[in-house]
Amino acid sequence: MAQDLQGRRVAFLATDGVERIELEQPRGAMHGAGARTDVISIHPGEIQARQFDMVSAGTFPVDRLVTDVSVGDYDALILPGGTVNPDQLRINANAVTFVKDFVATGKPVAAICHGPWTLLEADAVRGKRMTSWPSLWTDLRRAGAEVLDQEVVMDGQFTTSRSPADLPAFCAAIVGQFSKATQHA
Amino acid sequence: MAQDLQGRRVAFLATDGVERIELEQPRGAMHGAGARTDVISIHPGEIQARQFDMVSAGTFPVDRLVTDVSVGDYDALILPGGTVNPDQLRINANAVTFVKDFVATGKPVAAICHGPWTLLEADAVRGKRMTSWPSLWTDLRRAGAEVLDQEVVMDGQFTTSRSPADLPAFCAAIVGQFSKATQHA
Repeated sequence: MAQDLQGRRVAFLATDGVERIELEQPRGAMHGAGARTDVISIHPGEIQARQFDMVSAGTFPVDRLVTDVSVGDYDALILPGGTVNPDQLRINANAVTFVKDFVATGKPVAAICHGPWTLLEADAVRGKRMTSWPSLWTDLRRAGAEVLDQEVVMDGQFTTSRSPADLPAFCAAIVGQFSKATQHA
Repeated sequence: MAQDLQGRRVAFLATDGVERIELEQPRGAMHGAGARTDVISIHPGEIQARQFDMVSAGTFPVDRLVTDVSVGDYDALILPGGTVNPDQLRINANAVTFVKDFVATGKPVAAICHGPWTLLEADAVRGKRMTSWPSLWTDLRRAGAEVLDQEVVMDGQFTTSRSPADLPAFCAAIVGQFSKATQHA
């Protein structure tokens, strides 16, 4: 059970302004289940993390640039929040194309808090049941999603949660979802 | 000419994460033209300002709470940006109601950068020509606006700009727009 994700490769797509705990805890969940993880971003070096958006909370080293990876490199994609982070990703054409292409593979995609902004920018939420931080609900509905106010919403390849308070349930849900998905070569 | 806005009262609606220069420069433009200004917010005390979202840039004292003002108290409304600022305002029912009610008066409303998020949350942009920081363009279009990539877009009561780089043109435009508007008793 503890190695449900042995051999799986999981990408976290994030940039400056990422909410630290929303990257770190799901990353721990992936490692705890045996997966390998990369932080992929839109610039090299380190990305600046935040706590509740406003407090500096250290950095994460960038493992790979989004321009240097392909969707075949990963079995699952996780989109953490932090308000500024997806606000920057959604205007980066390489990041949006990667997300759109990854969704098209059918492999699992998880997003928490403000993370779903990049999904709605990629026009990937139409007809899907989802949740997010409440500030995105109007945008998600106008992009065609059905918004639910629940700690975890699962619909097909998507797992979404609202905020750091949902992380225990979110972490458990993504380990479960990713382990059920077919592993790609 | 220098006192075009003598006797006018202008509200800046903002909260933590406001982009400092997007509040300070338009405020200077208002004062330079003879207007009086208030920073109204959703919590008392001070709000935390930012420079390019990620760098701490001091504070602004809050003059009045949005729950303590009425739309009749002001002749014009300005919505500065900073990503976190309108992201917090748009989930505050009092702030959104104030914006919706202010728009309904027909008095001038100006917004820059991420500021228009609160306008689209209030469903106030349908059929309007507008601009904003590019990360909002998808949201603005889905909310029914026609998005233009120009330093200043004026449509009826609305004046909008894209970023701090547009501030010289934005400041001139709002002084002009506000001075042409009918002064309310």
